Amino acid sequence: MPTEIERKFLTRDDSWRDGHILKKVRYRQGYLGSSPASSVRIRISDHDAFLNIKGVTIGASRAEYEYPIPENEAAELLEHLCDKPLIEKTRYYLEYQGHTWEIDVFEGDNDGLVVAEVELGSEDESFAMPPWAGKEVTEDARYYNSCLARSPFKDWGR
Amino acid sequence: MPTEIERKFLTRDDSWRDGHILKKVRYRQGYLGSSPASSVRIRISDHDAFLNIKGVTIGASRAEYEYPIPENEAAELLEHLCDKPLIEKTRYYLEYQGHTWEIDVFEGDNDGLVVAEVELGSEDESFAMPPWAGKEVTEDARYYNSCLARSPFKDWGR
Repeated sequence: MPTEIERKFLTRDDSWRDGHILKKVRYRQGYLGSSPASSVRIRISDHDAFLNIKGVTIGASRAEYEYPIPENEAAELLEHLCDKPLIEKTRYYLEYQGHTWEIDVFEGDNDGLVVAEVELGSEDESFAMPPWAGKEVTEDARYYNSCLARSPFKDWGR
Repeated sequence: MPTEIERKFLTRDDSWRDGHILKKVRYRQGYLGSSPASSVRIRISDHDAFLNIKGVTIGASRAEYEYPIPENEAAELLEHLCDKPLIEKTRYYLEYQGHTWEIDVFEGDNDGLVVAEVELGSEDESFAMPPWAGKEVTEDARYYNSCLARSPFKDWGR
């Protein structure tokens, strides 16, 4: 089973923008419902579209399946069938001491939220913690994109 | 948007088995949750596997999207992520006066249920009603396969 291992952190400030940004990609994505066991995501990026299935989280690992789909069908699925609000964000790919970090800067109903993820080869792989990385939220379901689609950041009542 | 138009009937008896059966295919399928707006199905047949997304029904038409996926991944998704019970059935493809009918003979938790569907080019297309076709259940959500996965025939308490 393909498995994704990632750890997720809030950001302390914007100083990651001064780092080595490899690329940035804008994403629009939405969810076709979700069950306690899984979520089904439709995502359009600058150049392509994918359907993605994630299983329940067990620690930081979860089963993940990804299939390319035609971009026009992805746009229809987002508009007509996915839960609203859609998730809109720009993802910055950043290198920091041998690991690639993904910094998601959210827009729309999740404007103001910035989350940094690092993907690992195994759950106990060590990595250098960047100075701009703050509190770890790997286990906090509120930060799952599937949860942000139902309960967006603007409604958190901080 | 690709659209599927089909009408669904119960069967009065087994006399359809004497008709012109074109082929039969065994299906195992399950659903990755479902929302009020859509359902996401994983289906393995004798020879291939597909992920299929259906939108809400409007009359007999509903939006439908279908993507081939690797059979081993489909088997994992069915086993680990799909709602239980899975739907198991044999589908008989039958020709009757110019239309192809699909007769689903269910097994497992839906044993005893037999449903016949005819696919049409438009909602008002006419077709010959076979003698073995009984009550129409096109609009009855209980007969959706996605509903049979949550509320199987054996629990209907007839």
